[in-house]
Amino acid sequence: MELGMTERVRPLVEQVRRMVADEIAPLDAEYHAQVGKHPSGDRFQHTDRQLEILDTLKARAREQGLWNFWLTDSEKGYGLTTVEYAYLAEEMGKVPIAAEVFNCNAPDTGNMEVFERYGTEVHKERWLSRLLQGEIRSAYLMTEPGVASSDATNIALSARREGDAYVLNGEKWWASGAGDPRCAVYIIMACTDPTASRHVQHSMFVVPSDAEGIEVLRPMQVFGDDDAPHGHMHIRLTNVRVPVEDLILGEGRGFEVAQGRLGPGRIHHCMRAIGQAESALEMLCRRGLAREAFGKTIIDLGANYDIIAEARMEIEQARLLCLKAAWMMDTEGTRAAQPWISQIKVVAPRMALKVVDEAMQMHGAMGISQDTPLARMWTQLRTLRFADGPDAVHRRQVARTELKRYRN
Amino acid sequence: MELGMTERVRPLVEQVRRMVADEIAPLDAEYHAQVGKHPSGDRFQHTDRQLEILDTLKARAREQGLWNFWLTDSEKGYGLTTVEYAYLAEEMGKVPIAAEVFNCNAPDTGNMEVFERYGTEVHKERWLSRLLQGEIRSAYLMTEPGVASSDATNIALSARREGDAYVLNGEKWWASGAGDPRCAVYIIMACTDPTASRHVQHSMFVVPSDAEGIEVLRPMQVFGDDDAPHGHMHIRLTNVRVPVEDLILGEGRGFEVAQGRLGPGRIHHCMRAIGQAESALEMLCRRGLAREAFGKTIIDLGANYDIIAEARMEIEQARLLCLKAAWMMDTEGTRAAQPWISQIKVVAPRMALKVVDEAMQMHGAMGISQDTPLARMWTQLRTLRFADGPDAVHRRQVARTELKRYRN
Amino acid sequence: MELGMTERVRPLVEQVRRMVADEIAPLDAEYHAQVGKHPSGDRFQHTDRQLEILDTLKARAREQGLWNFWLTDSEKGYGLTTVEYAYLAEEMGKVPIAAEVFNCNAPDTGNMEVFERYGTEVHKERWLSRLLQGEIRSAYLMTEPGVASSDATNIALSARREGDAYVLNGEKWWASGAGDPRCAVYIIMACTDPTASRHVQHSMFVVPSDAEGIEVLRPMQVFGDDDAPHGHMHIRLTNVRVPVEDLILGEGRGFEVAQGRLGPGRIHHCMRAIGQAESALEMLCRRGLAREAFGKTIIDLGANYDIIAEARMEIEQARLLCLKAAWMMDTEGTRAAQPWISQIKVVAPRMALKVVDEAMQMHGAMGISQDTPLARMWTQLRTLRFADGPDAVHRRQVARTELKRYRN
Amino acid sequence: MELGMTERVRPLVEQVRRMVADEIAPLDAEYHAQVGKHPSGDRFQHTDRQLEILDTLKARAREQGLWNFWLTDSEKGYGLTTVEYAYLAEEMGKVPIAAEVFNCNAPDTGNMEVFERYGTEVHKERWLSRLLQGEIRSAYLMTEPGVASSDATNIALSARREGDAYVLNGEKWWASGAGDPRCAVYIIMACTDPTASRHVQHSMFVVPSDAEGIEVLRPMQVFGDDDAPHGHMHIRLTNVRVPVEDLILGEGRGFEVAQGRLGPGRIHHCMRAIGQAESALEMLCRRGLAREAFGKTIIDLGANYDIIAEARMEIEQARLLCLKAAWMMDTEGTRAAQPWISQIKVVAPRMALKVVDEAMQMHGAMGISQDTPLARMWTQLRTLRFADGPDAVHRRQVARTELKRYRN
Repeated sequence: MELGMTERVRPLVEQVRRMVADEIAPLDAEYHAQVGKHPSGDRFQHTDRQLEILDTLKARAREQGLWNFWLTDSEKGYGLTTVEYAYLAEEMGKVPIAAEVFNCNAPDTGNMEVFERYGTEVHKERWLSRLLQGEIRSAYLMTEPGVASSDATNIALSARREGDAYVLNGEKWWASGAGDPRCAVYIIMACTDPTASRHVQHSMFVVPSDAEGIEVLRPMQVFGDDDAPHGHMHIRLTNVRVPVEDLILGEGRGFEVAQGRLGPGRIHHCMRAIGQAESALEMLCRRGLAREAFGKTIIDLGANYDIIAEARMEIEQARLLCLKAAWMMDTEGTRAAQPWISQIKVVAPRMALKVVDEAMQMHGAMGISQDTPLARMWTQLRTLRFADGPDAVHRRQVARTELKRYRN
Repeated sequence: MELGMTERVRPLVEQVRRMVADEIAPLDAEYHAQVGKHPSGDRFQHTDRQLEILDTLKARAREQGLWNFWLTDSEKGYGLTTVEYAYLAEEMGKVPIAAEVFNCNAPDTGNMEVFERYGTEVHKERWLSRLLQGEIRSAYLMTEPGVASSDATNIALSARREGDAYVLNGEKWWASGAGDPRCAVYIIMACTDPTASRHVQHSMFVVPSDAEGIEVLRPMQVFGDDDAPHGHMHIRLTNVRVPVEDLILGEGRGFEVAQGRLGPGRIHHCMRAIGQAESALEMLCRRGLAREAFGKTIIDLGANYDIIAEARMEIEQARLLCLKAAWMMDTEGTRAAQPWISQIKVVAPRMALKVVDEAMQMHGAMGISQDTPLARMWTQLRTLRFADGPDAVHRRQVARTELKRYRN
Repeated sequence: MELGMTERVRPLVEQVRRMVADEIAPLDAEYHAQVGKHPSGDRFQHTDRQLEILDTLKARAREQGLWNFWLTDSEKGYGLTTVEYAYLAEEMGKVPIAAEVFNCNAPDTGNMEVFERYGTEVHKERWLSRLLQGEIRSAYLMTEPGVASSDATNIALSARREGDAYVLNGEKWWASGAGDPRCAVYIIMACTDPTASRHVQHSMFVVPSDAEGIEVLRPMQVFGDDDAPHGHMHIRLTNVRVPVEDLILGEGRGFEVAQGRLGPGRIHHCMRAIGQAESALEMLCRRGLAREAFGKTIIDLGANYDIIAEARMEIEQARLLCLKAAWMMDTEGTRAAQPWISQIKVVAPRMALKVVDEAMQMHGAMGISQDTPLARMWTQLRTLRFADGPDAVHRRQVARTELKRYRN
Repeated sequence: MELGMTERVRPLVEQVRRMVADEIAPLDAEYHAQVGKHPSGDRFQHTDRQLEILDTLKARAREQGLWNFWLTDSEKGYGLTTVEYAYLAEEMGKVPIAAEVFNCNAPDTGNMEVFERYGTEVHKERWLSRLLQGEIRSAYLMTEPGVASSDATNIALSARREGDAYVLNGEKWWASGAGDPRCAVYIIMACTDPTASRHVQHSMFVVPSDAEGIEVLRPMQVFGDDDAPHGHMHIRLTNVRVPVEDLILGEGRGFEVAQGRLGPGRIHHCMRAIGQAESALEMLCRRGLAREAFGKTIIDLGANYDIIAEARMEIEQARLLCLKAAWMMDTEGTRAAQPWISQIKVVAPRMALKVVDEAMQMHGAMGISQDTPLARMWTQLRTLRFADGPDAVHRRQVARTELKRYRN
């Protein structure tokens, strides 16, 4: 169980770390400060400066070959293992726009995996190749407003076969990235046969974002933030016609596609969460060493040493668990790794939220303001306790796996 | 130690509860949806509809005599005890704009207490009477960007005597309510003598918000939210001249004023936090009973019963502790009640944050969106772990009180 | 909701506190050191010195009228309210043998309540009067080894009617106090009709401890401690004949008797637990102030102030919740008070365990040794998380009560 | 960072697991039930049956070559890495007497390390060789009753040079294993020069347990248990003469020896704690699946799935952290591994205590009784939060290491 940094990946990690720290971090705040500054007043349009920042950084990354690391086991990517990728993703997690700079951002990586594994040649040409180039972006439409989507069998958006097409009707929300004007394609989970048995009622479709009948109703807010121009959109589909060729893998196989897609995505989020926790702990320490109160350096007051120690112990443990889950994926496959993925999916966001919360507290009111990245880190991490399955569902999976050993 | 609802206050609580539920709650979402809709584009201007909502509700409250409850021990108010007020404040906590409707909102109540206790006749006429009528609003400028304000002796904004005036120079931030165009007056803590002994370096001043030399630099954001049009403003004072008559109580007595001000304010926040926790628990239960997943009502899945039970037990305990702190204030005075105020100041926000967090989780992603009040509740509660002293400082006070019993 | 110490009870509390501190505490360690010193080698025989200690202290208590405080609402006792008794029980909780000294110890108080409320005249004369005098002791046989007794409907010990007697067969364990040679009578829950509906299958019987067919198999150990000579015994009943007159209240009414018995008993345990927590916190503070390490008084190291503050806040809250539950019993009756009793039953032992655990940690290894009472406190408190219903069952009750408000 | 089971160690782990489960576990309860059954009444004498059990099992282990695994990097042992040993130690942790059966028990392993690394040829011949054969046992005398031994510079037992000997005077307690009649030798930390600088005041001595002037005062109890015949003894030294040849390494080098000794010892405890947690989780699951209450299998009630999932996640993380600490020791040495050893020293016992506590709760009152090993597991794990340094000291070390990165 080799969980260390390999010789192959070590220089890449070093390059990414340096580029994140030296080139991306200095522009990240400016990028976010530009939100809402588009002349049209439309928050979901990038300003020229935003595009310039992104394009310049992406070009810099590509020219150094720091690109598409996530594409494990593939000739198109680096062929890194998931364990190796974990070390890179952790670095990318430290600054919000970094993942996109290296074309390693959600939800595109997951969607690219779908196209790669299950897509037709047309899908690969039309969508995958442009996504791999970072030319377009994509969204994944799964969660619905009317039902408990934690149980994916509840998903109700209807896809009815009519001739050589399916007609989709219903609503989706939390379509992350669908606010981005560059978002060209959706992967949509829909119910093709509500009378079928529980796990074969659903199918997965590829739909251009400009298809007729698609209406973006509003951006969902995360603690009041619309996360523009990325956005988590609420979308209505009215009689959207999807040619049968854009049904992925076959009718009733939506769950299979979803499972294949979600495993890696879940763990990528966790890797980045660990990077965020490391950033937050560094900020906590630096702040605590820089201020004075009651005649002492703040760090020497109260329980602060214990807070730091607990943070370090939790980060270490979460990272190791994440690496083990990655190693299981590499050696046993995503399905066998599922219980470990569920474990880290619960552990990593919770740990990172705790560390960020302590870092905020150490900064005083500044910690929840726009003057540090902590508040944004916190709200984004908080979404991970729902995204790709709420904690309760993952804990349930872990317990079922455990009990299986003892049931007769 | 009578902690129950008295016969006197019971009908008031009932009236407030009904008005909050039937009249204020239905308009609260509309009020907040209007933010940023002022024709000028200025988020810190109320729209006509916002003013209409506020004015109508305030008039309704006043005409029923539901007004200025917080003014305990005074002929101007109801003469309610702090314990009695606690039951009212809890109800007002359930909806964001409710406290203002009854003229019981922070920071005005605290500022009115300052004018009432320590103000000159001119202050009372010019500011207090209009605040009591709900005509103007006010702000309290204490926290500073450059220092650890948790130790108030660090406060550095300078007030230098020049003839019959003080000249103020420096910066304050987190001036809550200073974004509101109706905010007419500031109470400002400043350092009058940095060479004096630790607790007599500071003094408190009354300054009109339109005084020359005052510049509002920007709104501070709370998890990305500027809380417009109320606002938590970052303000610069450049050679602001304050006549000596507007020094409160005397030079070097800033701490005395601050202590008198903060005791009640702290506990009012806690009372409202308990109301928020009750709201959140109700939402949690209702949501859990309304959805289905994995073939069951969600509430019957996993640890949900335990989550509910823990929430109920923590709310009950926090309420009782809050009432005891109030009772101590009523019977022994704010100074003697200090350790209990510190206790509830730590306990209530933490408890409410936990309950709201669980309620968010029960709602799935909707719980962190604009479709429930939970996310806003959470971010506002989170500020209470800094406001009026961070948790760590209050815990320290509690421990010092405890240890005093055993030190020789 | 008057939760304070009344004028009536204040001097009693003071007397009890003084007697506990000055007379009982100094002999408690000696009493426990005598365990196992009986010439026969039988740990479940008191030594002469043990009996002397108990008898002398009990006589002292009786002559001052400090006796049977628990007998609320009765002419035989003080007629104290449950709230008033809470303040006394807290003091008695501070030293292990104190409750018996004042004839306020479990399980006798609960058993006396059963005799008082539901017993025949013969029961009152034969058992109750001697228990009230402190001449004999008693046990309550409910829990069984073979079933999950947390669901009392599982109780299986069989009582079969034969003529004018019931014949009992089966096993009970954790019969607390049944090791004491002075234990003269058992109250036993048995199944009289396994075919009846769920809550009327069981009945309650009065059985002399020397009845034919009763066999004490062994003492159960609590973390290795047999708690001699009190003991928590494992008992087998083989064809024990119980005359019909010793069936309490009537066949099938066992649950009714159990509920009447358990309410007060549960809360008495909680009151004493709060007293133990207070003792532990005092020990923690005194120890922390008395030792030095790394050049500082221990108390000034690490998170100790926070530990103290958290302990104080939790004790305050638990006490208030306990008093509220007591007040509910006084004003609304045990049945209506049930949700609050369940709450405090979960909260108080958990809180006290935490405080005792921190106190042990502050003492270093000494804290878990025989040189402080902390280890014994901890193990006894730990039993309260099972006794009279495990935490999980009480949390479930609290949640059901909460949800009832929202179910249609 | 290879943390997996190597091919070399895998068959050994399998052999140890089988022997623990099939041969040792069945005799463990019998061994403990024999305590106190020696004809003399002396609890610190083994009964014949106890010796028979131990000797038979040890002979079985030796004949299979399952012996002295802990002796990493040495020609005398297996030359296993610490990572490899971790997997073996985890298995041995599952049954109390197992570690001794394989001659891998504390404190002997630590003492053998001292003799191996720092001992003279005489020490090796006289003590080490017999310890390696399992013929004698040993104790380590460090902790003292009068001082805060968490700060080892407080250690006060005096060693005064007189001619060619040192004369030792003072008291030690918690000398684990010193109750065992086979315990032949002590390693003792003493203060040779209280006027020297802080870390060179102390020296380490080798003293036969039957040296003149040594008096075993009493066994210390762990939650009421004297852990006979192993014992944690309180010992007085009065004018004990120790020849200069039995000073280890040189005067003032006591800390150096202690550090060398404690690193491996600490991590061995943690490895075994993880094994105990695994056992406890298995018991929890099996019990939960075996009982019914309220019409359901207990495991399906309340929060039990979440309890299981949390336990699994914490065990996984603690094991990985333990393996990483072991790997650091193997690759960087004990000194460099210190921060990781401190981390796991805090994490592993706390985690195991929590899992065992939940397992006890799942068993109802039986869980704290003599009918399962859980209560004994719990009390022994609780000692680990003090042994080899209390949690607070280890957390402090972790935080200092962290802050060092950011201090200028």
